[in-house]
Amino acid sequence: MIVLLGPTGYIGAKLAAGLEAAGRPWRGLSRSELDYTRPGRLREFLHGTGATWLINAAGFTGKPNVDACETQKAECLFGNAVLPGILAAECEAVGIPWAHLSSGCIYQGRSGGRGFREEDPPNFDFRSGFCSWYSGTKALGEEILRGAPRCYVWRVRIPFEEEDNPRNYLCKLLRYRRLLDAENSLTHLGEFVLEALAMMERRAPFGVYNMTQPGAMTTREIVGLLQTRGYFPQGAEFFADEKDFMRTAASTPRSNCVLDVEKALQAGCRLTPIREKMAACIRELRVPVS
Amino acid sequence: MIVLLGPTGYIGAKLAAGLEAAGRPWRGLSRSELDYTRPGRLREFLHGTGATWLINAAGFTGKPNVDACETQKAECLFGNAVLPGILAAECEAVGIPWAHLSSGCIYQGRSGGRGFREEDPPNFDFRSGFCSWYSGTKALGEEILRGAPRCYVWRVRIPFEEEDNPRNYLCKLLRYRRLLDAENSLTHLGEFVLEALAMMERRAPFGVYNMTQPGAMTTREIVGLLQTRGYFPQGAEFFADEKDFMRTAASTPRSNCVLDVEKALQAGCRLTPIREKMAACIRELRVPVS
Repeated sequence: MIVLLGPTGYIGAKLAAGLEAAGRPWRGLSRSELDYTRPGRLREFLHGTGATWLINAAGFTGKPNVDACETQKAECLFGNAVLPGILAAECEAVGIPWAHLSSGCIYQGRSGGRGFREEDPPNFDFRSGFCSWYSGTKALGEEILRGAPRCYVWRVRIPFEEEDNPRNYLCKLLRYRRLLDAENSLTHLGEFVLEALAMMERRAPFGVYNMTQPGAMTTREIVGLLQTRGYFPQGAEFFADEKDFMRTAASTPRSNCVLDVEKALQAGCRLTPIREKMAACIRELRVPVS
Repeated sequence: MIVLLGPTGYIGAKLAAGLEAAGRPWRGLSRSELDYTRPGRLREFLHGTGATWLINAAGFTGKPNVDACETQKAECLFGNAVLPGILAAECEAVGIPWAHLSSGCIYQGRSGGRGFREEDPPNFDFRSGFCSWYSGTKALGEEILRGAPRCYVWRVRIPFEEEDNPRNYLCKLLRYRRLLDAENSLTHLGEFVLEALAMMERRAPFGVYNMTQPGAMTTREIVGLLQTRGYFPQGAEFFADEKDFMRTAASTPRSNCVLDVEKALQAGCRLTPIREKMAACIRELRVPVS
C-alpha cells in the first residue's frame, strides 16, 4: 500500500489519480488527518497500515506564486527542507522506500548548453548567494536528503497539462497580462505521473532524477504554438527583459533553467521531447479560446 | 510575567537563575510540557498566563559540539530557523515583545580589524557559500526575524563563566587534548544575563545586538592566563593550524570571529572589555587544578 502525502495539492492530486487509474492500492494522508510533521507519528501510521511506499507530494509552493514564500519564510522552510528530513527518518524507521517531489528551480541557466545534471551543485540556492526563498528551501531539502538510502528525489519543473487549472503553466500564460520570455525545461504532468510510478514499480535505482521533458522551449515558442490553436488572437505582450519583469511584476527572482534528463532516460523513463509533447498537449488543451 | 523557552539548556538555565535572582516574575516552558513548536499553541499559553515577555533560549546546538548538527540537519534547521519564525508569529499574535538567542558564529574573521557590526551581512552562512550547517541555520533564523517589530536578537559567542560545566569554554579548553589557536570575541555568561535582562527592563531599542565582551582574545592568550593560575602545568598542545584541526578533529568548519559591540554599549549595556573580564573570571574559576 502506497501512502501519499499532500493528496489534494496540484501534483499530489495527479499522483492520486494516477495511482487510482493504475489500480495500485494507495491511501492519501493529509496533515489535518494526522500531523505527520511531528516526529514519530508517521512511523506508527505507516507501520499500522502496512505501507510499502511513501510518496511526499506535500510542500510549500506559495500562492499564487513563489513571491508568497518571501513573506512566509518559516512555513516554507519547514515544508520544503525540514519535512523531507523528518520523512526520511520516519521511512527509515519503518524500513520502507519513498519518493520526494523536488524542483529543478535550484538552477538557473543552461549549464553551457548541455543542461544541468543531477549531480551538478545548485546555482540558484542559498549557498550560491542568489535565489528566491523558495528555491533556497528546496535546495536545502535536497541537501538534507543527500545520502538517504532508499529515496527517489523527483525534480519537476514548470508543470503543464491539458486541463484547465490555475496551476497549469499554459493557463498561467493565458491569464497573465504580460509574459517573461525565457528558456526552460518543462514537465508534462500526465507523463511525469506515469513515469514516476513506473520507476517505483520496476525498482529503478534510487536517487535524484530530473523529471522534465528532454530539451527546452522559450516562452515565445510556446505562445507561438498556442496561437496556432487560436489563443492570443491579439498577440501576447512581453516584458522588455527580466529587469523589467522584476521591477514591475515580481518580488523575488525566478529560476529559468534547462535540465539534462539523460539519467531518467537511462533508468527507463519514456519522456517525450518537449516540442512534441507541448504541441500534443496544446492540441488537447481543454481551455476555451476566449 | 516572562516566559522562558529552553529553561534547562546551558544559557537558558543561566537566564532562569538571573530572572530568579532579580526577583522578576518568570516561568520556564519546556517542549515536553507544551509543544510550542506547533503554531497556535504558544499564543494560547501566553494569553492564558498573561505573559508580558517571551525569551527564546531553545535552539539546536549539537552535542557534544557543532559537528553533531551535520548529521541532524532537519532538527537543527527546525530549531534554529523555523522555530524563531513560529515564535515571532505567536508573539505578534499576542502582542508581546520577545527576545531570541542568536550567535555571532555567522561571521568569520575580523572585518578588517574593526569587528563585524550587526548590520554586516553574514560571511559564514549558506548564502556566502562556506559555513557549518549550524551557522547556516542560525543565519537563516536571523533572516526570518528581519523586520520583526518588537524583538531583541542577542548574539552570543563562545560563552565562558566561573562554573565547572562542560559547556563552559574554559572547561572545554582544559578538557581538549589539543587546542586550535584562533582570535575570537567571547561572551561572559553572567554579564550577558545581567545586561540582557536589563535591556528588557529599560526597554532599549529592539533589534539585533552583538552581546560579547568588547575586544577579542586568542586561544593562546587565554591559555596563558589559565597558566598563571596553575592550569596547564605541562603546557598546552596546539594544532599546527586550522587545516590540521579540520583534518584530525573536526568534521565541519568553525567560525572564528571578532564582533563590534558598539551598538550594545550605546544602548547602555555595561560590557567589560574581554581581557579584564577573562582575567577576573579565571581568578574565580571553580575548576580544580589537576
